[in-house]
Parts: sequence; structure tokens; C-alpha cells
Amino acid sequence: MRAVDLIRTKRDGGHLTRAELEWFVAGVTHGSLPDYQASALLMAIVLRGMTADETAALTDAMVCSGVRVTYEGLAHIAVDKHSTGGVGDKTSIILAPLAAACGAPVPMMSGRGLGHTGGTLDKLESIPGFRTGLALDELRRAVATIGCALIGQTSEVAPADRKLYALRDVTGTVESIPLITASIMSKKIAEGIGGLVLDVKVGDGAFMKTEADARALARSLVDTGELAGVRTEALLTDMDAPLGRAIGNALEIVESIETLKGKGPPDLESLSVECAARMLVLSGIETAVARATARVRDALASGAGVEKLRDIIANQGGDPKVIDDYSRLPAAPDREVVTAPRTGFVSAMKAEAVGRAAVGLGAGRDRLDAAIDPGVGFIITAPVGTRVNVGDPIIEIHHRGGRGVGEARRLFESAIQIAEAPPTARPLVLDRIQGRNA
Amino acid sequence: MRAVDLIRTKRDGGHLTRAELEWFVAGVTHGSLPDYQASALLMAIVLRGMTADETAALTDAMVCSGVRVTYEGLAHIAVDKHSTGGVGDKTSIILAPLAAACGAPVPMMSGRGLGHTGGTLDKLESIPGFRTGLALDELRRAVATIGCALIGQTSEVAPADRKLYALRDVTGTVESIPLITASIMSKKIAEGIGGLVLDVKVGDGAFMKTEADARALARSLVDTGELAGVRTEALLTDMDAPLGRAIGNALEIVESIETLKGKGPPDLESLSVECAARMLVLSGIETAVARATARVRDALASGAGVEKLRDIIANQGGDPKVIDDYSRLPAAPDREVVTAPRTGFVSAMKAEAVGRAAVGLGAGRDRLDAAIDPGVGFIITAPVGTRVNVGDPIIEIHHRGGRGVGEARRLFESAIQIAEAPPTARPLVLDRIQGRNA
Repeated sequence: MRAVDLIRTKRDGGHLTRAELEWFVAGVTHGSLPDYQASALLMAIVLRGMTADETAALTDAMVCSGVRVTYEGLAHIAVDKHSTGGVGDKTSIILAPLAAACGAPVPMMSGRGLGHTGGTLDKLESIPGFRTGLALDELRRAVATIGCALIGQTSEVAPADRKLYALRDVTGTVESIPLITASIMSKKIAEGIGGLVLDVKVGDGAFMKTEADARALARSLVDTGELAGVRTEALLTDMDAPLGRAIGNALEIVESIETLKGKGPPDLESLSVECAARMLVLSGIETAVARATARVRDALASGAGVEKLRDIIANQGGDPKVIDDYSRLPAAPDREVVTAPRTGFVSAMKAEAVGRAAVGLGAGRDRLDAAIDPGVGFIITAPVGTRVNVGDPIIEIHHRGGRGVGEARRLFESAIQIAEAPPTARPLVLDRIQGRNA
Repeated sequence: MRAVDLIRTKRDGGHLTRAELEWFVAGVTHGSLPDYQASALLMAIVLRGMTADETAALTDAMVCSGVRVTYEGLAHIAVDKHSTGGVGDKTSIILAPLAAACGAPVPMMSGRGLGHTGGTLDKLESIPGFRTGLALDELRRAVATIGCALIGQTSEVAPADRKLYALRDVTGTVESIPLITASIMSKKIAEGIGGLVLDVKVGDGAFMKTEADARALARSLVDTGELAGVRTEALLTDMDAPLGRAIGNALEIVESIETLKGKGPPDLESLSVECAARMLVLSGIETAVARATARVRDALASGAGVEKLRDIIANQGGDPKVIDDYSRLPAAPDREVVTAPRTGFVSAMKAEAVGRAAVGLGAGRDRLDAAIDPGVGFIITAPVGTRVNVGDPIIEIHHRGGRGVGEARRLFESAIQIAEAPPTARPLVLDRIQGRNA
């Protein structure tokens, strides 16, 4: 096989065979394929696209570049949830304990924040002592004992994805539905799950800005999961404004715990419950979403969910007392308040600008190797739809010595809109996309 | 400037600025731009195209990567001819002496054969002693004294092109009109010419298989030359069948000399004369093509052309006696004849297959570093249009110990067609494309 022939085939709009895609991924993984040929092929894929079969074959080849984890003696099917990334999205930290409390095995591998979007690992690591770098044996033991682990991707899982993503990042080849699909799904399939709920974000703060693009990505993800034998469904959810009220790592841990205690904001609670309920169905614990939802709500009301989070934190070396005492979490020393410039209704709070402002404070990063400040962030005191008088607080800034505050205020000027009339209520879940055989 | 921004701009169908293209070419030339970013951008250019202004800016940046040669004290404008490559095309070796004999300065830089197409340098080097690797000083001196040199591209001329071409060759990014244009025109402009005749081949044995593609390439080449201040015109010429009757390096030298002696095949003589005449007009020696043609025909009839070739050979260290004694050229030891399988008219002789058969004999190469055998090749005894009886010779194979003969016979089986009726005569020159301001 010659790389230049694969490149020419895709350049001219042809289809690559499973054998060709396996050869490509093996070459990338082992370094035998030069980067300049890989990047030319990636650009041809970006511009020519891939069929569902090609995407599935690429995904499968990436799974096979590493270990596909297996679990023994589980009573139910292992399940997970993956979000395409947003601002203030801490649902994983809420729904994983809820689903596990209901009996679902949840071996959840998450990522770090990059650009304006936050990352579950960064949030968890704001808990003193919490280790996200569990080995596969520790992951299996955690799933077998307490039913859940919240960890980072291990080096054994889909190593081809790390190499390909590093190359895509510097060659303008990130924006491609087949390549995004293969990247996400290869990692999830390699985790060893049998069911997956996808939260495909759409809107200002999402990777996909339009519903059409988000829908196409959701369809590609679901089809690829199903072709790999993983029961997969996707929710299309709104990411125009941040989810919940807290943005920033330790602040989001507090909000997650509060939500598990039944005191969370309604948007965050309802999305977490819906995803957890769908995980229970995919896990085989319930057959109907309505019954699964009731079961998750019970776990929330009884405190079983928050107790499961306590177990997870303890199991991964974290300080479980944070559940009861938020002062054990890192906090920013300084506060400022952003107030309403006029009277009216908060009609928009553009998520991307809020996320960028958080990066400016130090809560996020623009490069994967940059350090973050776990204590800083924002608390939204007047979310979209709230009526405010001029001078009322809208956002509380938790900062360290003024870093990023000026930039945040500038970003908020255009991100926050005040209108005379209340905004039209928009559903958080825009659509549900299921497998073609579901 | 960041490479990934340029890549994304072109990927999304945008236009690159002159400054961006200069930065890209400088990065390629100096090795500061990683190959994987260069190849991603090249693929985006292949699939998204470039405007005429972008192509001209890219070409200019590639010219500026090296030396642009200048000549002092010339009575007329320096001119050249470039062909996009064919089979049996030895016109350069005929028209350069003819144009020089008429007073045009001709600093001609040519290339080597690759794949099924032959190369002028390989043909010239079959003349014992002939040096094609002249330094720029030697080139200038040759142009000032005898009016012509036939040399290879020097390392000072458009070094960016060599690096880019090496990358394009292994990344499936050769087939792009803007990139082909910049590659050809940067080298020609850097030669220091003020006028250029392009022979854009179209048909089975050409790089461009369709007239539409060839026309688009010709238009791009002419526009780019004119934007760089080089008066440029293009002929679209047929390359379905080989040009002339000889294919193979020394055999083509013999045919070139015979043509300069007035004994060449009509197709080869007429194309050589037409190109030389147009060079005289671009050089400012004649204002009308008809008068220029008469002047070239005089140089042919008087023997001034063949005497100029003798001077060129002597000036470049070759054996000038080959003009009178073809036995001084290398020759293959063995002969075989391909005969007509039935009675009728030779209606097609597919040039690409003939070129591939020549590579099989050793007359050409599939990799630029491969050695060639200067003596082997073919003499077409019954060109397209000839009436043959079953068993009549069509092609004489000049080979060495049978190498490549079996493969050549197999290739000829489908390449040579015998029909009951004579083929429709097709003009050799399909069209002439001039600058928009000509």
C-alpha cells in the first residue's frame, strides 16, 4: 500500500477501504507514516468527507490502536455519557454518581478544558487529593466495587487518537464531522462500554454553532456507535448561554454537589436527570425512560447520588469532606460584581464570551500544557430571563488580584444583553437522536 | 503569522494575501515551516483552487526564493519555450538553435524525463561529452556569444520549487493548475526571459487528458507570465500519439538533427518552426508571425539552424561530429520489429503506453534518481494514418538484450489500433492562447 494512492483516492472524492484505513492508522500510531502524508490525507478528508462506513472503519482502526477495556462479572451493561463541550457544563459530575447509585456501571473517561470550554478532569482535580490518573486495573476495581470511576484517558486507550489530534490541531483539520466522530467514538468504544448517551451542544458556546451541523454530528456519532455494537443515543442541547450558574472549577464542584443535594439550578438538574435516566435504559436496568427517570429522581431525593459521589471521591484519593464543607475547596481571594447597565430582562448571555472571560481569569487554558487556577470563576446571579433593575448584580466575579477582570468586563459588555421584553423561553433539549435500529 | 490560520483560510475557500504566500514560500525554502503544515495547505489549494492573483503572488514568491538571472548587452529580448511534457517531443532541440540562428537569445533550462514523458536533458546527455550542468556565468557567456545554451535548472533558480515539488510528489498534490502554474512559471521567470512560448500538450500522452483542462492550464500559465511582465503565449497541441517517429534519447537526437537538416517528419518540423517563429516575435526580432516563420524556414533551409546546434554542442563540451556521424552516438545492440496484426490503417498509437514501453526498455525512469539507457527506444515506421498490410512493420524496437521487449509488445497490443477506414486527420495545433493584453 502507498500513502500517496490513499491520498489521491480521497482527494478525488473516492472511498477508502477498511484495509486502507487500518494501514493509515497503524502508520500514524507507529510513526511509519510521515506526518506530511498524514496531514495531506486529513485535509482531503476534511474537504471530501467520509461515508458512514468509512467513519466506522476509521473509528474501529483507532480503537484497535490500543486496548479495548473489558469488565468481568458486571450485573448490568457499562454505560457512559459524553458531551461535545460547553460552558458551565458539569453534568458528568452529577449524572455519573446518580446512574451508579441506581446500579449502572459507569467507567467514565473525561477530558480537560481547552479554549472557552471547561473540562471535567480540571473540575474534579480542584477537590484536594483527587486523582484522575487511574490505571486500567484501578478503573476495573472501582467499577466492580463502587460502580463508577471518573478518570482521564489512559495511554493504553486509542493512542492513534492522541497522535492524530496533535497533528489535526496544527494543520487546520479539526473541523470535520468524520474525524471528530472517530476521535470521540474511538475513545468511548475503547472504554469497554455497551451504551452511550451523547450530549451534542449547539449554539454560541458550542463547537457546532448551528442546529444543522450539530444534528449531522449527532447522527454520525450515533451511527458509528451502533455500527461498533454500542447502543448510542444523542441529545441536542442548547449551549447559547452557560449551563447552570457556576463557571470555574471549584465553583462548579460546589454547584454539582448542591445539585446532588436537590438544590441545583433547574436547567442543570433536569439535563443531568435526563441523561442519567437514558443511561439506566441503555444499561438494561430499566426498559422505559419514564421509569428510569423516576428511579434517578429517587436517588437524587434520597441522597443516594451525593453519597455515591462521596464514595467516588474517597476511592480516588480525594477529600470526601468537601461534600459537607465547601471551604475545603480552593477559592479565589477577591470578588467583584457586574451590574445591569439598565432596567429590563436579561435576554442573552453569550456562552463563548463567558468561557473566554473565564480563561482570562485563569479558570481555563488556551494550550493543553498551561496551568489553571482552580478557585477563580463566575457565579451568574441573574441568568437569562431574569428581570433586573439598573445596578442589580448579574455576575459575581471570583478573581485573584484582578487578573482578567478588565477583559471579562469588556467581554460581558457584548455578551450580556438586556431587553425590554422577557426572552422567549427556549427548550434546553432541542431534539433526541436514536440509532436507526433503536 | 501562523501556518494554521493560512491553512484554515484556504480550507474554507478564502484567499491568501501576497504577504501570506511570501511567508509560506519562505518557510518552505528555509525549512522553518514544518512539512506537515505545508502539505495540509497544498491539499487545501488543490481542492479549493487559487485566484489568478494568488497564483501570480505564489509564483512571484517562488521566483524570489532564489536568483532571477539578468543578461547584459543583448540586442533582443531573451526568450524560451516550455512544454508540459509528452512522448517523442524533441522540439526544444530543434527550435532553440533555429531561434538563436535568427538572432534570438535563448537561455533554455529544461528538465529530465519522468514516468512516460521524456526529458530534454536526458536526450542531450546522450551526446558524448555534453554538459547540461552549466553555472549561471557560463549560461550568460553562452547567451552573449553563441546566443543559446541548453542546460538544466541551476540550484540558484527557484529553490522553493524543488522543495515544494518533492513534497507534492509524495502527498498527492501535484494535480493542481495553480500549483503547476507556479512551479513552471517561477522557473521560467527566474531564467531572466522576457518572452515565453508554452506548448501545452493535451491528450492520451499528456498530463492534461482533456482539452478543457489543458485550456485552463494554458490560460493560467499565460496570465501568470503576463502578470510577471513576461510576454507569454501558449499553443494547445495534440499529444494523443507520439510526436515525430523516434522515441528514446539518442534516437531523438538523430531525429532532431535530421529535422534541422530538412529531413524531419512533417509534424515535428511544423511544430518546431511555429514555436521558433513565435519566439522571434516575442524577442522583438519580427513583428508578424508570417515574417518570423519565413525567417525560421530560411534558417532551416540554409543549414544555419543545424550549424547553431553544432556550436551549442561544442560550447557545452559535447562532440560536434555527431551532427555528421550518428555512429558516434550510443546505440542499442538489438532490434525487433512490431508488425501489423491485420490489414488496414493505423488509426491510433496511444502515446502514454508508448512512453511506458520506452521506460520498460530503459529509455526513461519512474524515479528521478534512476539511471537510463541512452541507446534504446523505438522508431515508428508506420505512424498514425499509414495504410498497412498484415505483417508490415509498424515499430522498430531498439533494445538491449530483450529488456522490456515483452512488456512493450503487450502495451502496443492495446496502444496501436488498426481500422478499416483511414482516421480523420486532426490538427497538431488545436488552439493558440495569448495574453489578455496581447
